[in-house]
Amino acid sequence: MNSEKYRLTRTSVPALDAMLGRPLPVLDQGFVRVIDYMGSDESIVQAARVSYGLGTKTVQDDRELIRYLMRHSHTSPFEMCEIKLHVRVPMDCWRQWIRHRTANVNEYSTRYSLAIDAAYATPPDGWRLQAKRNKQGSEGRLDQARGKALSREEARLQQYCRKVYDGRIEVGVAREQARKDLPLATYTEAYWKIDLHNLLNFLYLRMDSKAQYEIRTYAEVIGDQVVKPWCPLTWEAFGDYAQHLVRLSSAEQRILGLVAAGKAAQARKEAERIGFVKQGAKGPVRSLECRELEDKMKRMGMEVPWLK
Amino acid sequence: MNSEKYRLTRTSVPALDAMLGRPLPVLDQGFVRVIDYMGSDESIVQAARVSYGLGTKTVQDDRELIRYLMRHSHTSPFEMCEIKLHVRVPMDCWRQWIRHRTANVNEYSTRYSLAIDAAYATPPDGWRLQAKRNKQGSEGRLDQARGKALSREEARLQQYCRKVYDGRIEVGVAREQARKDLPLATYTEAYWKIDLHNLLNFLYLRMDSKAQYEIRTYAEVIGDQVVKPWCPLTWEAFGDYAQHLVRLSSAEQRILGLVAAGKAAQARKEAERIGFVKQGAKGPVRSLECRELEDKMKRMGMEVPWLK
Amino acid sequence: MNSEKYRLTRTSVPALDAMLGRPLPVLDQGFVRVIDYMGSDESIVQAARVSYGLGTKTVQDDRELIRYLMRHSHTSPFEMCEIKLHVRVPMDCWRQWIRHRTANVNEYSTRYSLAIDAAYATPPDGWRLQAKRNKQGSEGRLDQARGKALSREEARLQQYCRKVYDGRIEVGVAREQARKDLPLATYTEAYWKIDLHNLLNFLYLRMDSKAQYEIRTYAEVIGDQVVKPWCPLTWEAFGDYAQHLVRLSSAEQRILGLVAAGKAAQARKEAERIGFVKQGAKGPVRSLECRELEDKMKRMGMEVPWLK
Amino acid sequence: MNSEKYRLTRTSVPALDAMLGRPLPVLDQGFVRVIDYMGSDESIVQAARVSYGLGTKTVQDDRELIRYLMRHSHTSPFEMCEIKLHVRVPMDCWRQWIRHRTANVNEYSTRYSLAIDAAYATPPDGWRLQAKRNKQGSEGRLDQARGKALSREEARLQQYCRKVYDGRIEVGVAREQARKDLPLATYTEAYWKIDLHNLLNFLYLRMDSKAQYEIRTYAEVIGDQVVKPWCPLTWEAFGDYAQHLVRLSSAEQRILGLVAAGKAAQARKEAERIGFVKQGAKGPVRSLECRELEDKMKRMGMEVPWLK
Repeated sequence: MNSEKYRLTRTSVPALDAMLGRPLPVLDQGFVRVIDYMGSDESIVQAARVSYGLGTKTVQDDRELIRYLMRHSHTSPFEMCEIKLHVRVPMDCWRQWIRHRTANVNEYSTRYSLAIDAAYATPPDGWRLQAKRNKQGSEGRLDQARGKALSREEARLQQYCRKVYDGRIEVGVAREQARKDLPLATYTEAYWKIDLHNLLNFLYLRMDSKAQYEIRTYAEVIGDQVVKPWCPLTWEAFGDYAQHLVRLSSAEQRILGLVAAGKAAQARKEAERIGFVKQGAKGPVRSLECRELEDKMKRMGMEVPWLK
Repeated sequence: MNSEKYRLTRTSVPALDAMLGRPLPVLDQGFVRVIDYMGSDESIVQAARVSYGLGTKTVQDDRELIRYLMRHSHTSPFEMCEIKLHVRVPMDCWRQWIRHRTANVNEYSTRYSLAIDAAYATPPDGWRLQAKRNKQGSEGRLDQARGKALSREEARLQQYCRKVYDGRIEVGVAREQARKDLPLATYTEAYWKIDLHNLLNFLYLRMDSKAQYEIRTYAEVIGDQVVKPWCPLTWEAFGDYAQHLVRLSSAEQRILGLVAAGKAAQARKEAERIGFVKQGAKGPVRSLECRELEDKMKRMGMEVPWLK
Repeated sequence: MNSEKYRLTRTSVPALDAMLGRPLPVLDQGFVRVIDYMGSDESIVQAARVSYGLGTKTVQDDRELIRYLMRHSHTSPFEMCEIKLHVRVPMDCWRQWIRHRTANVNEYSTRYSLAIDAAYATPPDGWRLQAKRNKQGSEGRLDQARGKALSREEARLQQYCRKVYDGRIEVGVAREQARKDLPLATYTEAYWKIDLHNLLNFLYLRMDSKAQYEIRTYAEVIGDQVVKPWCPLTWEAFGDYAQHLVRLSSAEQRILGLVAAGKAAQARKEAERIGFVKQGAKGPVRSLECRELEDKMKRMGMEVPWLK
Repeated sequence: MNSEKYRLTRTSVPALDAMLGRPLPVLDQGFVRVIDYMGSDESIVQAARVSYGLGTKTVQDDRELIRYLMRHSHTSPFEMCEIKLHVRVPMDCWRQWIRHRTANVNEYSTRYSLAIDAAYATPPDGWRLQAKRNKQGSEGRLDQARGKALSREEARLQQYCRKVYDGRIEVGVAREQARKDLPLATYTEAYWKIDLHNLLNFLYLRMDSKAQYEIRTYAEVIGDQVVKPWCPLTWEAFGDYAQHLVRLSSAEQRILGLVAAGKAAQARKEAERIGFVKQGAKGPVRSLECRELEDKMKRMGMEVPWLK
């Protein structure tokens, strides 16, 4: 076997090499840094060709192949890329982050070392109001005046917590115990390593408008400033086929089909038949699922028959 | 704490208890047996309520909640159910099965024991033809006459392989080596334990019409005869929101929106603009992605503007 | 196939059934409750026999087989058992808990619901001092007088944090944001489901004397009050072959071999040759690894040649 | 934040760069090729320092730190390195390989492409005999004469199988079905990506003398020719602390302690008390566990009291 003809040089992405190690700032004192990576768009194509034995090779074909894989949820080739980030995140946000299990993690240990002396602070205009419709979300902001008072109180509380922590350390309390009353907003740091498929999953969930603002901000930085330059073809395909996807259930397919065929009245009837719309005392009452369908129809520029 | 008021009895599903251990036949000599399980539809609801603190309790609400979770890919409550199956499967099929990594497995060891003396045989009318369009699929059947010849030859080959295996064992060759030329169609057995979320993933991929016939047959038995009686509400929601889902990309949303608004000409133009349809010498040439969209439109009873 | 002869009834463990749902108290306000389980010692044996085709059946043999599996790290049969716990844990402790990735989790959501109004409090005699030798551990206790002051201050701080949280909620701040300065000691709850193999891994690491006191307390309750009655043969084998194991490196094997052969002088020389013991100005200086070996030798009742 | 001072260049290991892509031959027609990698010994140290906040920096310290991590099973820093291999392996061997679940895989698809026209052949002196004591192992070789006959028959069988496969393809049978009677010895190919911690686990199990010869051969090539040049400090520590480890159970510790203290008679009595040694009609009968202890004692150069 003439082994020379199989020689490879390592895949590299100059755009990512140029930013290696540089902190991308997030929130008031957080950051994301790319420490290392493996693979590129090309590696995904290469892996898919091992599986599928595809012979085509032009750049256009690479793009088509990646789009095909994304569209059809052929996820394993995307697992062939890996990235390692160094992040600085409020613990409260990290609690959500760490729920993504398929990743490798080394977190800064506050058993071993003193807790990082930094907590995430809210600006006076940064206090979000509890959402009415979505019990786990927020919408709108508190007025400046009350916001200012809350931010002042927040600073006072965070300083007090730190003072108590420092005091415990001073009298010799073990670090593992002294930290117990630090606020959740205290920053932590970690090395976080994950493959591209699972990273896209993370971004899909955390860049969503329903994700909490803080982790969404991190996800946006990772998506737009890291994944996009790293694997541009994959990022484009992810946007088109995963992130902005509309999913239609069996019932929704039926209703949309009727609307598209110009049968608005029948569509309305079907919506009533399956309980999406009920006639209440004060007019039609729509189910949660019905309102989700309306959102989809509006996104597609369609009229909703039962709202006319 | 009055611990008595928290007492529980174990969740059980009588329909599944009644079939415990009974082999459900698959293919010519394969089977699926339910050995044990944990949880039910009710456990999913219970877990979701820990997370979301939901207070509602009627049966109707349980159904709504499960449908909501499925629709929005809130997958973790489905992980709270677990099932253990005993399966007998051709090794060739098992090779695909085992690619689902999030499961626990104990496979029959042909290092330790003699290989099972059974191989999956194809009836004369069971020989499938290579699909033209889908390079990894099949369509149609070979004619009976040639099928008969192939089946005869298959039997001969399988007997020969077994004879060679037995001969090696007889002269004292180690079982781990003697097995090396058994045909892939040889049956193996395994205990396979998996949570419901990952099982639904398996079923989603393997009940799909593009999955290979053999594993699809197992998936259908597991879906229809096991999951359906085990967690009927989840199974119904899976059918409506996952299995028969239509996914629309950004481009597809635009085109469908135009069609639904009665703007067929504009829809056709958009399809051309983005390269779905090209004017070739012998009429319009449609991309692979375009034909996928057409399939979706037909499923929804819509007319395809560029095919009129 | 006479399917009746394969009928099974579900595995159950009366000792566990009797305690299902009952809270086992941990720390001041925490608990562990068994919600459901699948399998038993018997299931492990059954799974091993699928793999290894073992034919023996008496109780004595079951015990031997389980001990053999444990001794030789044949872990997959232990994955055939699964348990689901409901736990109430301080968030600080939960941060360590959740690092065990191979488990299914539904945690109480403080985005969705108000944070649990309970924080873990330290009694006056419960303040641990920072360990000297082990940078991430604790040893000894703070004196009562200073402990009393710390506990008073802790109560004040926790009340203040809660007041700030309640105040934010009152003016309409979103729950997801209001929680940001709760102390790490705030209790959370979760459903936690894991297979027995991974649970034993958790217990191995968290029942260790080097684990932090809080999580160790939970691990001890789970080990002694849950796993022991659930799978008594496995628990016994775990104690003998995993938990109290002594591991000997190549170098340690050589030194111990010399000691056992009565060649103390040679053993000392070997320890010097490989850098375990160095002659310093004020007598012998031993490496960290050397002191670890000494601990093992003492546990085995052996004399350490270089300490005589 | 002066981001320039955090700039990094990518970790690389010249020894591995030099062999990238080159096939390392294994068995008769198999190979292992390194396609890409991420990290090095240095990355492990770096990750450990994030967790433990360790400040030391000399090369000597790196080695000490890596050895400490290995010795104490602090596995997460080893997960920070990743490697991607291209392997060509008999399917029979791949069946064992793929059981290691924490890896990313793209296997050559014989649904999509024609099966690789190569099967693993056994030389006349390569036929191993079934082990007597270890039911799942082999020991010794078949004599040349009979080996020659078996090898001839093997070639005939493999050719026949291929002829049947080719014949099916020729009449148009789908590739996914035509392959069903290929021998398990048929070669397959895959891209296999795994982190260093899980790779070491794989090597620990598969380089073991009890692992089947074929996969052991692959494991040895990966260990000696890939991991060793890639992460030399880790490889050394793995050899000293993991691979050649002796594990002593509670009972074994007691017995060895007695032997080391020169109390051979007491050691013998203890061995009898716990059932390791029983007095049978024809002299002492030792349990399986007892013989395992004897092996350990011999490795450490110790005399076995009950064998004198």
